[in-house]
Amino acid sequence: MIPGDPPRRSLSIRRVSLDTGRENIVVISRRSMALRPELFRGFSRIEIRRNSKIMLATLIITDDDDLVGPDDLGLSEPAFRRFAEPIGSLVTVTPTTPLTSLEAVRAKIRGESLKAQEIAAIVDDITHYRYSDMEIAAFLISSASFMTSGELLALVRAMANAGTQIKWNNPIVVDKHCIGGIPGNRTSMIVVPIVAAHGLTIPKTSSRAITSPAGTADTMEMLARVDLGVQEMKEVVAACQGCLVWGGHVNLSPADDILISVERPLCIDTREQMVASIMSKKLAAGSTHLLIDLPVGPTAKLENAMQATRLRKLFQFVGDHFGIAVEVIVTDGRQPIGNGIGPVLEAQDVMAILSNDPGAPADLREKSLRLAAHLLEYDPRLRGGSGYARARELLDSGAALKKMHKIIDAQGPSPCSNDIGNLSFDVTAHDDGFVSRIDCLQLNRLARTAGAPIDKGAGIKLFKKIRDRVEKGEPLYRVYSFDQSERDLAAKSAENSAGYTIQSTGLLPTEIPR
Amino acid sequence: MIPGDPPRRSLSIRRVSLDTGRENIVVISRRSMALRPELFRGFSRIEIRRNSKIMLATLIITDDDDLVGPDDLGLSEPAFRRFAEPIGSLVTVTPTTPLTSLEAVRAKIRGESLKAQEIAAIVDDITHYRYSDMEIAAFLISSASFMTSGELLALVRAMANAGTQIKWNNPIVVDKHCIGGIPGNRTSMIVVPIVAAHGLTIPKTSSRAITSPAGTADTMEMLARVDLGVQEMKEVVAACQGCLVWGGHVNLSPADDILISVERPLCIDTREQMVASIMSKKLAAGSTHLLIDLPVGPTAKLENAMQATRLRKLFQFVGDHFGIAVEVIVTDGRQPIGNGIGPVLEAQDVMAILSNDPGAPADLREKSLRLAAHLLEYDPRLRGGSGYARARELLDSGAALKKMHKIIDAQGPSPCSNDIGNLSFDVTAHDDGFVSRIDCLQLNRLARTAGAPIDKGAGIKLFKKIRDRVEKGEPLYRVYSFDQSERDLAAKSAENSAGYTIQSTGLLPTEIPR
Repeated sequence: MIPGDPPRRSLSIRRVSLDTGRENIVVISRRSMALRPELFRGFSRIEIRRNSKIMLATLIITDDDDLVGPDDLGLSEPAFRRFAEPIGSLVTVTPTTPLTSLEAVRAKIRGESLKAQEIAAIVDDITHYRYSDMEIAAFLISSASFMTSGELLALVRAMANAGTQIKWNNPIVVDKHCIGGIPGNRTSMIVVPIVAAHGLTIPKTSSRAITSPAGTADTMEMLARVDLGVQEMKEVVAACQGCLVWGGHVNLSPADDILISVERPLCIDTREQMVASIMSKKLAAGSTHLLIDLPVGPTAKLENAMQATRLRKLFQFVGDHFGIAVEVIVTDGRQPIGNGIGPVLEAQDVMAILSNDPGAPADLREKSLRLAAHLLEYDPRLRGGSGYARARELLDSGAALKKMHKIIDAQGPSPCSNDIGNLSFDVTAHDDGFVSRIDCLQLNRLARTAGAPIDKGAGIKLFKKIRDRVEKGEPLYRVYSFDQSERDLAAKSAENSAGYTIQSTGLLPTEIPR
Repeated sequence: MIPGDPPRRSLSIRRVSLDTGRENIVVISRRSMALRPELFRGFSRIEIRRNSKIMLATLIITDDDDLVGPDDLGLSEPAFRRFAEPIGSLVTVTPTTPLTSLEAVRAKIRGESLKAQEIAAIVDDITHYRYSDMEIAAFLISSASFMTSGELLALVRAMANAGTQIKWNNPIVVDKHCIGGIPGNRTSMIVVPIVAAHGLTIPKTSSRAITSPAGTADTMEMLARVDLGVQEMKEVVAACQGCLVWGGHVNLSPADDILISVERPLCIDTREQMVASIMSKKLAAGSTHLLIDLPVGPTAKLENAMQATRLRKLFQFVGDHFGIAVEVIVTDGRQPIGNGIGPVLEAQDVMAILSNDPGAPADLREKSLRLAAHLLEYDPRLRGGSGYARARELLDSGAALKKMHKIIDAQGPSPCSNDIGNLSFDVTAHDDGFVSRIDCLQLNRLARTAGAPIDKGAGIKLFKKIRDRVEKGEPLYRVYSFDQSERDLAAKSAENSAGYTIQSTGLLPTEIPR
């Protein structure tokens, strides 16, 4: 608001059926007495006030009296929900007052370093939806060019403080996190029951798929309800030592979701922002011991060991500062882990491993045991070096399976059908040879084209992995869909053994890179 | 669009009465078959296609069938205008394909320098409304941290090429530009008739007020029509050698207006972006000789001589590259120039000077003569050093006034009332002494509070300038309004001699800094 601008006439709140994502959009009639065309244009940012309550929003102007009358202020769905005042309440609207924290963003653009309280003010304003996307982008991009270690720590702290902060009455609360990018790779759903069966507390929150064909929350939802609130989650953990829930309802580090929604379309992915995102959630979740999985491979998020090392050091630095024991392991990210890609197919892999089914994918089992072993060694009672044997004992004995059933019962029944797509086709080898390379990005895209994660039972089942011998015409994988046009498009994009490289001569890749 | 995503059902274009500024917003029913909730969320970016025509837009989802039915695609006002297809036309919608030029923005964020064709592609996409505000912010902020001289030249060229490019059959086309920030200071309206009366071609385009109480276009509009198109403007210049029109209808460097709409709320104001903005418009306007006015003062845009020098060199560098003869003069920016602030009051100052009215403000007259002198010296027939005498001759003889009337007649009659605000009050000195300082920013804000530029006749008339002697209770300036509440707010914010510093002892500022 321009200082000294006159107060405007009051408008009456009305709810308009406009779903505008997380953007606060409001609609005012062009005939409204509250509207001064030179102050308010379409898409101006405005302030809505009722007594001491203030909300920022973006303005749309209408000539349609059926939508919003001249004495009304139409609030879009998110704006109505957030402003939380009854229909008919009187409000005033004014152009926005500049946000003080944007001064710090401008300082950052000029190349200055920010103080912890400046970063806290920025995160607070972002969390309360006071920043436009444009302003969030300004903060992210100015931070992408450089961020001091002090700024990173301040950002992690501010983000963790901005949402729910869970406290556990337990000196050891273990957690694991993978930076993602590898199809399948549903290790959490095997690691959690193993670790919980041992007796360590492991309250796991996961995300849903955003750009991938399935997130852990999507896959777990094939087996149980996952949209638990904090209190429900605590009850499950009290009963089972572990849980596998969707982080969305728990509201850990809510600024992170907002930042991600701007980072993703802009493809900003700095190490600092990745570390701030993950560590703020773990800090808010009350984790004391954390295992980070960094898959490395030509089509993984990290392409080489040097990238992984730099990221590892950053995780350790932040962990040390906040008193979280962080262990980072670098894993084989050259190909999918497990056979299924897509929520139902991945859930089948998980249950096959927990059930000690001889046909279960060995790579996913092995990797899960290895991760569980690291976590189990956090137990001071366990003899050093015996983590793997203990993990294997809990899996082989059926204790992990039993624990998984207990967690499923505690979380509640799955709301989803576990049907697999009724339309399928096989993709075959175009030549004799060995599989020398599998493109994770291409398989992720293909599974999405086939319908995952929208159609839970759509996806891919792999028959061959790197180093496997194949003959010309032999199936490499099968693609499942529910929709004919999606099946056809998937078939088209899977032509010519898509995602697989078949090598007839020469050296094969080594078995497992360390 | 995710590669291989299936084609969606067609939707029928409908126009919805939503004025969304320059944002392309579209509305789809939640029950639409074209909508897949996991692909399209509120505020997703989508592509609308009809045959080979593609437009990018931001999506709002509605449950209100009266607004948009399940088979319709509602286009907001700007989207409907830009897509330019009849109501009822069938279109398909898909998630957006990533813009290739955004790869270059990401490279810039990573700290790389961009090639000329990359910058041209970015500017082309921005001009065609393919970038969201967030993406524009990404480009601006990544460029704010550094821009090479090659990038700056490429940006000027690309911005100039993106809109109208005017050619004049004349080896000398002179122009002037002030970077703004000083209240009053309406020199163009005096310089143009002087220079045109001499016979040089001076086709002046100006902006309307954005954050100030008046732009040259607003002030000229008190005397004549200013919203001329390119052809009309050329006819006025053919008849009068000069014009004073609003640049908005001429469409010079349209990307600039879009960039400014993001720079302003973010307060990004780098020298490079200011130079690109101004020089792209001058290049597109076909100017061959350009005078730039850089006011320096504690509350001006430039605070000291060093800032002015750096900016001057940048203007000269770009001018040299494009073959525009650029001359830069640094002027006194410590206080308003002229007595009036606000469109009507400023227009009165201008006409008083052109009419050689003895009560006309001497500072505005003197500065205008000085600027005109520089421009007249571009005439090779004029003897070196005689520009000032020639400018004064044209003003004193009434030739400039006659030329101004000719320009006014050629442009057409003003559509505005020239009434001055009927509510006024005086702000008086709180002490005896001398005026030692006037705050330009405070007076600009006060004039806006009083109603300018929305109310053309609102504003401020100054009675005292720096170095003037005042007595306690003597009026410093008068504030004019039309609206009682605006008058009251202005009076409140003008309490205690607002904007003026009265000094009873000590040294006074020097008369004119060079």
